[in-house]
Amino acid sequence: MSGVAQVLALCGGVGGAKLALGLAHVLPPGELAIAVNTGDDFEHLGLAISPDLDTVLYTLAGLSHPVQGWGRGDETWHALDALRQLGGATWFALGDRDLALHLERTRRLRDGESLSAVTQSFAERLQIHARLWPMSNDRIRTLVRCDEGVLGFQDYFVRRRCEPRVISIEFDGAERARVLPEILEMLRAPGLRAVVICPSNPYLSVDPMLSMPALRDALERTAAPVVAVSPLIGGHAVKGPTAKMMREMALSPDNLAIASHYSGLLDGLVLDDGDAADAAGLSLPVLATPTRMTSLDDRVRLARATLQFADELAGSGMRRAS
Amino acid sequence: MSGVAQVLALCGGVGGAKLALGLAHVLPPGELAIAVNTGDDFEHLGLAISPDLDTVLYTLAGLSHPVQGWGRGDETWHALDALRQLGGATWFALGDRDLALHLERTRRLRDGESLSAVTQSFAERLQIHARLWPMSNDRIRTLVRCDEGVLGFQDYFVRRRCEPRVISIEFDGAERARVLPEILEMLRAPGLRAVVICPSNPYLSVDPMLSMPALRDALERTAAPVVAVSPLIGGHAVKGPTAKMMREMALSPDNLAIASHYSGLLDGLVLDDGDAADAAGLSLPVLATPTRMTSLDDRVRLARATLQFADELAGSGMRRAS
Repeated sequence: MSGVAQVLALCGGVGGAKLALGLAHVLPPGELAIAVNTGDDFEHLGLAISPDLDTVLYTLAGLSHPVQGWGRGDETWHALDALRQLGGATWFALGDRDLALHLERTRRLRDGESLSAVTQSFAERLQIHARLWPMSNDRIRTLVRCDEGVLGFQDYFVRRRCEPRVISIEFDGAERARVLPEILEMLRAPGLRAVVICPSNPYLSVDPMLSMPALRDALERTAAPVVAVSPLIGGHAVKGPTAKMMREMALSPDNLAIASHYSGLLDGLVLDDGDAADAAGLSLPVLATPTRMTSLDDRVRLARATLQFADELAGSGMRRAS
Repeated sequence: MSGVAQVLALCGGVGGAKLALGLAHVLPPGELAIAVNTGDDFEHLGLAISPDLDTVLYTLAGLSHPVQGWGRGDETWHALDALRQLGGATWFALGDRDLALHLERTRRLRDGESLSAVTQSFAERLQIHARLWPMSNDRIRTLVRCDEGVLGFQDYFVRRRCEPRVISIEFDGAERARVLPEILEMLRAPGLRAVVICPSNPYLSVDPMLSMPALRDALERTAAPVVAVSPLIGGHAVKGPTAKMMREMALSPDNLAIASHYSGLLDGLVLDDGDAADAAGLSLPVLATPTRMTSLDDRVRLARATLQFADELAGSGMRRAS
């Protein structure tokens, strides 16, 4: 490897953002890039909203809500109260401070800036040293085909609270969308140390990225080790509908299914030490280590263990592509 | 007269809104309609903002700030703080609750609703019994020609704090704009009791209305008495740049100039009792009465006195048009 060893994280919302924060603490400034799912993006009240980008942004800036998994911790809801009084749509909770970000992003996108440029500008303003990238500047929309028909992601996730039974998930626009060039460059760079697929929902948060052929291809060909951190602990997702969706899609909610889902991409899988027995059924290297991230220390420790695991895979020659 | 006697108020921002509130207290529900200046309207951060409509809306809803003359009294500024942190434009102060109104209006306008329909809906939501009308659903923009060039109204008024020296004022779009039909119908209705030109800035807030030929014409022809309440007290405006602008436009800031400005339109002028001596130089009926509106009682008293004055003018036959 030449130059600065770098790490690329693929990340969805809350679970992914926790590990991304750990990685940001472990890696020196400039060595971490985070590619974020934009399949959840949508227009609401005329605003361009990027929920996963915002979750990662707020998490890395130390502004995220400590419990709810989205939005800011210092948030107030006066605009939403006033909107309710005027008869406006309040099913998607927009806090006062959060609103400013959506307003400013929407304005800048309308003025012709790219989503990646706006995101990078916000990250710098919020003193974030990692590079924060939307997976694409083009429009990709996650659609959930379920027993009630095809729902937009936020309709399914927020308005319907993940209650409908999922049949399949589609990523409208993914075939045509251009992967953010910086992501492909990084995957092709000889200095790439590791790719970490964060413990986000594989079907809702990581698949939008993998559904772009050029990104999947670059991931398959990268010289760096690719490791995923399983989003399941004891057959349950820490947060969100991963396990429920897996059952609805006739998948057993376990690490075997996760490894199978990422088949052909992974050099190793990190799973919770409580699930260490799962390793026996898996045909790839496994690191069993506590993956529940409650404290910042948990995040840092898991980030460090994951990187060390990737480094060992790189050194051992135990590589899918070699 | 037949049917319910009705009153039409022509109104700009803060000064006008105070009298409009007085009129709303004096008149039974359904008997007051308020036509409001939209020449100050502008787009900011992608939002459609109607400052005078909002001032009247908040004032009549009992939500307005008791001192500053714009915005809500219960306002917070968290979105603006967050916008500043992101490097956004903060020269126009948008409170958190106020933001919701702009967001919802913008959304509904984009969805094809008229400004008058959105305004009426908001008024009903906020329990306002008066009819609240934009002067037009078409775009009219007040432009201030000054020593620094031509400025948009908000640029002049907010960003430049009325500091540039005014040469003249123009109303872009006024010639082509259609007056809100309800306003013309009311001016032509036999049941109209009075037209009250509120103590708003004649040049900035009332002229945008008068610059629409059909509105001026209907005002000249209406059978009802038309009375204006002077915005000057002792040669000063209670709030805003009226007197400064009058001097810059080589007008003496007195009631003679106000009466002359409304020449051909008025049946009577209400001026402050401290300026009672001005009546001698005026060729139209005058009511001298305290016009400073500090308390709600002041507003109600002035509204009642103004209506009584109009009723006397109607009964006396002392009418400009007769």
